[in-house]
Amino acid sequence: MNVYYQRLENIRAIMREKGWDALVITASDPHNSEYPGIRWKQVQWITGFAGECGDIVITLDHAGLWTDTRYFIQANKVLPGTGFELHKTRVPEQVLIPEWLASHAFAEKEGQVVVAVDGITQTISSVNSIKDAFRSAGRVENDRENGFMVVNAPDFLDGLWGDRPAVPQSPIITLSDELTGESRQDKILWLRNYLIDNRCEAMLLTALDEIAWVLNARGSDVEYNPVIISYLLVTMDEVCWFVRKNSVKALDGETSASFEEMRREGIKILPYEDVEIALANLKDEGGVRALYVDPSTLNYNLYRILETNLDSVSVRFGNSPVALRKSIKNEVELNGMKEAHIEDGIAMERFYYWLEKQFEFGQTVDEWQAACKLQSYRAQIPGYMGDSFETISAYGEGAALPHYVTPRENAPVLERHGLYLNDSGGQYLFGTTDITRTIPCGPCTELEKEDYTLVLKCHIDLAMAIFPKGTCGCHLDILVRNALWQNKRNFGHGSGHGIGFFLNVHEGPQEFRQNFNSYPYVPGIVNTNEPGMYREGKHGVRHENVFIVEDAGTNEFATWYKFNTITLCHIDTSIIKKELMTPEEIKWLNDYHQRVYDTLSPRLSPEIAEWLKGKCAAI
Amino acid sequence: MNVYYQRLENIRAIMREKGWDALVITASDPHNSEYPGIRWKQVQWITGFAGECGDIVITLDHAGLWTDTRYFIQANKVLPGTGFELHKTRVPEQVLIPEWLASHAFAEKEGQVVVAVDGITQTISSVNSIKDAFRSAGRVENDRENGFMVVNAPDFLDGLWGDRPAVPQSPIITLSDELTGESRQDKILWLRNYLIDNRCEAMLLTALDEIAWVLNARGSDVEYNPVIISYLLVTMDEVCWFVRKNSVKALDGETSASFEEMRREGIKILPYEDVEIALANLKDEGGVRALYVDPSTLNYNLYRILETNLDSVSVRFGNSPVALRKSIKNEVELNGMKEAHIEDGIAMERFYYWLEKQFEFGQTVDEWQAACKLQSYRAQIPGYMGDSFETISAYGEGAALPHYVTPRENAPVLERHGLYLNDSGGQYLFGTTDITRTIPCGPCTELEKEDYTLVLKCHIDLAMAIFPKGTCGCHLDILVRNALWQNKRNFGHGSGHGIGFFLNVHEGPQEFRQNFNSYPYVPGIVNTNEPGMYREGKHGVRHENVFIVEDAGTNEFATWYKFNTITLCHIDTSIIKKELMTPEEIKWLNDYHQRVYDTLSPRLSPEIAEWLKGKCAAI
Repeated sequence: MNVYYQRLENIRAIMREKGWDALVITASDPHNSEYPGIRWKQVQWITGFAGECGDIVITLDHAGLWTDTRYFIQANKVLPGTGFELHKTRVPEQVLIPEWLASHAFAEKEGQVVVAVDGITQTISSVNSIKDAFRSAGRVENDRENGFMVVNAPDFLDGLWGDRPAVPQSPIITLSDELTGESRQDKILWLRNYLIDNRCEAMLLTALDEIAWVLNARGSDVEYNPVIISYLLVTMDEVCWFVRKNSVKALDGETSASFEEMRREGIKILPYEDVEIALANLKDEGGVRALYVDPSTLNYNLYRILETNLDSVSVRFGNSPVALRKSIKNEVELNGMKEAHIEDGIAMERFYYWLEKQFEFGQTVDEWQAACKLQSYRAQIPGYMGDSFETISAYGEGAALPHYVTPRENAPVLERHGLYLNDSGGQYLFGTTDITRTIPCGPCTELEKEDYTLVLKCHIDLAMAIFPKGTCGCHLDILVRNALWQNKRNFGHGSGHGIGFFLNVHEGPQEFRQNFNSYPYVPGIVNTNEPGMYREGKHGVRHENVFIVEDAGTNEFATWYKFNTITLCHIDTSIIKKELMTPEEIKWLNDYHQRVYDTLSPRLSPEIAEWLKGKCAAI
Repeated sequence: MNVYYQRLENIRAIMREKGWDALVITASDPHNSEYPGIRWKQVQWITGFAGECGDIVITLDHAGLWTDTRYFIQANKVLPGTGFELHKTRVPEQVLIPEWLASHAFAEKEGQVVVAVDGITQTISSVNSIKDAFRSAGRVENDRENGFMVVNAPDFLDGLWGDRPAVPQSPIITLSDELTGESRQDKILWLRNYLIDNRCEAMLLTALDEIAWVLNARGSDVEYNPVIISYLLVTMDEVCWFVRKNSVKALDGETSASFEEMRREGIKILPYEDVEIALANLKDEGGVRALYVDPSTLNYNLYRILETNLDSVSVRFGNSPVALRKSIKNEVELNGMKEAHIEDGIAMERFYYWLEKQFEFGQTVDEWQAACKLQSYRAQIPGYMGDSFETISAYGEGAALPHYVTPRENAPVLERHGLYLNDSGGQYLFGTTDITRTIPCGPCTELEKEDYTLVLKCHIDLAMAIFPKGTCGCHLDILVRNALWQNKRNFGHGSGHGIGFFLNVHEGPQEFRQNFNSYPYVPGIVNTNEPGMYREGKHGVRHENVFIVEDAGTNEFATWYKFNTITLCHIDTSIIKKELMTPEEIKWLNDYHQRVYDTLSPRLSPEIAEWLKGKCAAI
C-alpha cells in the first residue's frame, strides 16, 4: 500500500477514536512562516506533496490538498495513490477550505460538526475563517443541535510520525549598525512609541523575519531563510526573547557572544517554550493592560493560552507595524541591496559565459550541474551566506513548472535547442537577491520566441511604470500581464514580491498580484518584477529583476513614484521578436543593457567583458 | 449674515439643547440613493453646496463638508462664509468622517461622546462605521465614562426647514415583458429561490432602482432617475409594495391601471409609511424566521425598528442579489441598449452638425443654448423619456470642473478657440445612454491637444482590453490612466460606471476605480469608459463611451472577455497629436469611426451623412 495512503488511514483511525469529523493541517510552522523548518513539513509527510504552499483537509470519506496554480502540475503528479484529491486555489471558481467545510462537506450534516486543528501550526486568523464560514452557513459554535466545534490538537502528529525532527536550532549572528543602518535600541524605541500611540503596553512578535529585523540578528533555522525560531515580547520596560535555550551551550562562541551583547543591552534571553508561561502570566506584568499582536502570525495554540489566562489584560489584534516598516528600507540597506545586485550580476554573467562555453565545446551540462556551477560563482562573493532559495534550474518542459524542483540525480540535460530557465538568488551579509533569466540553448520555435518576447514586454511595461502615491500592487499588476492578455495568454502566479534585507526572499506586506492588498508601494520598497509564461510539456519563460521604488517628483496632480531596476544581468536579445515591441520598450531594454555593461564590465575579466558587450548590444 | 451660517448656528442651538457633541448629515435619502429627491437635499439646504456627493459633520466648534476630488473646486467656491470647511476625500491622506470623529475631533474628550444622526438618511452600514471607529479608538458604546452614544434624530430638520418639500410622488408606468425581457413573476420567483438558498424567508428591498427592476415599473420621483420612492417586501407567499398611498388617486389613469395589473398578479400595494408597521410585525408573518436585507441601503431608522421589534425573526445582512443580477443585462435589454445608443448617436451627430454650422455662420452659442439644442434632438426620438442626468455643457475653464453645472442664465459663450465639453445622456423606454465628447471650437493650444490625445489613448487602451474571467474594475482601472500617468497627469474621478436599462445612469455593483471592489466584469454588463483631464482655470477633456462586456472565447489559460463599444458618435480627430498614439490605438480609432459612419449614415440626412464622412475619415 502507498505509504501516504497508509498514513492517511492511520490519521483517520485517530479521528474516529476522537470523534473528529474533519482535520485541517497547514503547511506552516508555529510562526506562520512561508517556508517552515523540516519539523513542520507535515503536509509533505502526509501526502508526499513538497510544494511550498498546500493545506490539507481530511474527513472520514474525503482527503483534499488545497494549492495554487503554481503547483497544479506538481500535485497531479504526486497525489495519485495517496488518497488525496487536488482542490485548486487562485482560480475564479475556487472554494477555499473554510467554505468547503461549512457549505460543501458538512452542509447537510445533522448535529455538531467537529473540526480538529493542530493549533501550533494554525493561526488564529485561519481558525477564525473556519468559524466564520460555519456561522455564515447558519451554525452556532459549540451548539450540539446545529453547531460546530473547533478542537485544538497541538502536535498530535508526534504519535504517528516517529522520527519527526525536533525544533531546529542554528548559530546566531548579530549584524552591526553599520550593516543595518539602525540599531536594535532604536527599533525597540520605535516599537514602544507605536505601543503608546496605540494605547497598548506590550507587543508579541511572532513572525520570524520581523524578530530578526528588530534584533538585527540572523540564524539559519529555516533553509535559505536567515531566521531564528523564537518569539519576542516587548513591553514598556522589558524585551524578552524566547529562543531555543540550549543554543547558548550547543553553538559556537559567536552565538554566545551575540547573546552576551544583547544581554548587556537589557534583552532577556529565555527558553523558547517559556513564551507560554510569559503569556499566561502577563497580567502580573506591572502596567500591561493591552497586548498588541498580529493575528495573521499568532498561532491558535498561543491564542488559546492568552484567551484562557488573560484577565485584566486585553488582546488587541492588528497588522504588525514591523512588517510595513521593515519593507521600507533605509539608505544603508538600499546601498547594500544595490551592491549585492552588482556582485550577484557578476556571478550570473560568469555563469552564463561558462554555460555558453560548455555549449561551444560540446560539453554536456545538466540542470543540477548548472545550478551547482552558479552557486560556486556566488560563493566566491565576500559576504555570501548561502542561496536565498533553492535554485530552479530547468530546461524545456521542466521550466513549465513555475516552482520546479531540480533533481540532484539524473537531472535533465540542457539540449541544444529550446529554452533554459534559471531562477536563483543569494543571501549576502549586505543584501538578498532574486533573479530569473531564460536563455535559448540553440534554435527556438516561433512559439518560444513569441512567449519570450511577450513576457519581456510585460516585464518592461511594469519596470517603466510611473504611478501616483497611494497605488497598490493589485492596481499595478495588470501592467505586467496586459501584453500577454492581449494575446489571450496568462500566468498563474503573482508578478512580484517584496524582498528582505539579508532576510526572507519573500516578504510583505506589498505584492504584485490581483488580491486586494491595501499597502501602497512607497519609496524604499525593494520588490521583484517577474512575469512568466508556462506551457505544460513544452517550455517556460520568466524574466525577473528586482527594483526599488523611488520618488519621481510632485506636481499639481500627485506625488509620483517610479521603479529603479537594480538587478544587473543581460537579457538574451537573440530570440526577441522585435516587431512585437514598442519603441519605448526597445529603448528601455537598450538603456538597461548599457547600464548592465557599464556597471559590470569593469569588474569582469577582459574576455567576459568583451563577451558581455555583445550580449548588451542595442537592438 | 450668510443664510447658511445662520442655519448652521440654528442647528448648533438645537445641538446644545439636546446635548449632542456632533451631528452627521448625509446627502442621501431613506434609500441611500445617489441622487436624492429634493426633500433630501439637506446638505445643500444647510451649506449651499450642490454637489452630488457631500456629507457634513457639525460640532459646536467645527463644521465640515466631506466631498471628493470631483467637487473640490466647487466646494471652495461656495463654502466661504457658510462656516463650513472642506474635508477632501478620495485623496491618499483622506480622513473619513468616522475616523475624524473618533480619532481627531473627540480623541481627547473625557466622558461620553454623543453623535446624532438623522437615521432616515443614514444607512446602518454608515452608522456602524462610526461605531467601529469609536471602538477602535478604545471607547465603549453607551459607556458614560469613556464611551460614545449614537442618537437617532429622524427628520429633525423639519422644525428648522419650514418649506421642506414632501416625499415626492410621480406617475408610475409598468414595462411590458417584451421591453424588459423578463416578467415580474419570474424575477420574484428567482428572488424566492435566492431566499431558499440562503435559508431566509423574507427579503426587504430598499434600493429604488432594484425595486423598479423587480417590478418592471418606472416613475420619476427623482430627477433623471426613473424610480419610485418605495420599499418592497418579498416573502415566500406575499409581495408587499410600500409606495405613496395617494399615488392612486392623485395620478393619471395609467398609474391606476399599473396598480391594478400588479394587484391582479397578487402584489399588495400598501402605503409607503406602513413599511415600519410591517417590519415591526414581521414576527407575526407565518414562517418568517430570517429577513435578508442589504445594510448598504437599509436606513438606520428602519433598522432600529427591526432591532427593537424583532423577536423570533433574525436579520441577515448581505449584499443585495438584485444589484448584481440587474447589472447583467439579458438579450432583450442589450438589444434595447444598442438601439438606444444608435438613436442617441444620431441626435449627437445632428447636434454637432448644427453647432458647427452656427460657428460657420458666426452665430453666438452659449453653453445653455447648446444643452437645450441637444435635448431637442433627443426629444425627437420615439420612446424618449427625458435626459438621464443634467447635461454638462461646458466651454473652456468650466469643463475643468468634472461635474460642472451649466447656468441657465448668462451661461458662458462658446468662444472660437479652445475646447467645449458635453456630457449628457437620454432615458428611453428601451435603454439609457451616457456620452461625453470634447470638441475644438477653433485653434487649440499644444497643451489642449496633448491632454486631448492622452485622454483618448487612455480611453482606447481600456476599450481594447482583453481580460480573463475574475478581473475586477480596480484591476482594469490603470489601463485607462497609464497613458496619463506616464506623463505625470491624472484625473480625480472613477473611470467608468455601470448603467441601468431605462434606469439610473449610475449603477453598481461593478465600477472602474481604484477602490477594492470584488465584483468582476462579466458578459452582459453595460458600463461607461470615461477618462478625463482637468486643468483649473484652463480647460477640461473627457472622452466617454458605453460598452458591453462580451465573451472572447476560452483557451487553456482562461475564459476571456472583451468590451464592445456601443456608443456611436465621432470623436474629433482634427486636434489629435498622432505621434503620441500607437499603431494599435490608431487602428482602433479608425475602425470605430468606420462603424460609426456605416451605422449612422443611413439614418441621417444626406448632408449630415456627408459631413459625418469627413469627421469619420481615417487618420
